[in-house]
Amino acid sequence: MLTKDQYYMQQALEEAQKAAALGEVPIGAVIVYNDEIIARAHNLRETTQNALTHAESMAIQQACEKIGSWRLEETTLYVTLEPCPMCAGAILQSRVPRVVYGARDIKAGCVDSLYRLLNDPRFNHECEVTEGVLADECGQILTDFFRALRERKKQEKLFRQQQQKK
Amino acid sequence: MLTKDQYYMQQALEEAQKAAALGEVPIGAVIVYNDEIIARAHNLRETTQNALTHAESMAIQQACEKIGSWRLEETTLYVTLEPCPMCAGAILQSRVPRVVYGARDIKAGCVDSLYRLLNDPRFNHECEVTEGVLADECGQILTDFFRALRERKKQEKLFRQQQQKK
Repeated sequence: MLTKDQYYMQQALEEAQKAAALGEVPIGAVIVYNDEIIARAHNLRETTQNALTHAESMAIQQACEKIGSWRLEETTLYVTLEPCPMCAGAILQSRVPRVVYGARDIKAGCVDSLYRLLNDPRFNHECEVTEGVLADECGQILTDFFRALRERKKQEKLFRQQQQKK
Repeated sequence: MLTKDQYYMQQALEEAQKAAALGEVPIGAVIVYNDEIIARAHNLRETTQNALTHAESMAIQQACEKIGSWRLEETTLYVTLEPCPMCAGAILQSRVPRVVYGARDIKAGCVDSLYRLLNDPRFNHECEVTEGVLADECGQILTDFFRALRERKKQEKLFRQQQQKK
């Protein structure tokens, strides 16, 4: 039996899988309002070639459109990976009151790892943060993706070397 | 005679004036590539009711579209006010190599005031930053805007009180 947080994180993971299927780094997000998913998105940076198309940022834009306001009060944002500075900033700008994330991003995470941007009283908004929901699954999908990418690059290199020898 | 940086900041200020004319907090940005302005935008948060529509973020999206890549290499971003965490993050995500800003934002600025997000060697990108270009003009347009806003609210309050007395 899944908790409510696990259920919604599972939905975010489904979004991450859609990204993986496109060859995108598999990160997914959903936004919940009144126990309903009002926005869902996955990383599309390579597909769109637009630096802003991270899962969280796109979900926030969708939710603003749905609610008709830049203030996403009473919402919860679920994301499989700890947000980067841009997405943490977008969360502050849209006043999302609660953020739940899966795996930590030790290289660029700005919620707990490098900075704690969502809990800085100097900003005009702070979030309640829950980390580690389905963390293993959220981390594993990334590990699998990068392992397959390295393997593909290795195979491509071997193929090129063989072609040059011919 | 304006320097090149002052000339482009003047263009960003013209964008800020367009925001003011719409009743938006007057902040403007332009992105320059090969001595040409390839993107220009002004804050549209109230008009769009979309939390991501800050001047810098929209200019970055436009420039990605123009260049056809999420990597905005060899560009310079000019913005009238020190970027917030979201826009500083968008600058990192789009690998803008140089950022020039006008006035400091002591309440939310993440380039010099509260954080130095654009110069943190732990991230995979760092920027060259120039601050203070046309700082007085960039600050003044904001001061004028907020003074007029306070005055309008005061007049509205007076008007309501007079209506209630009738």
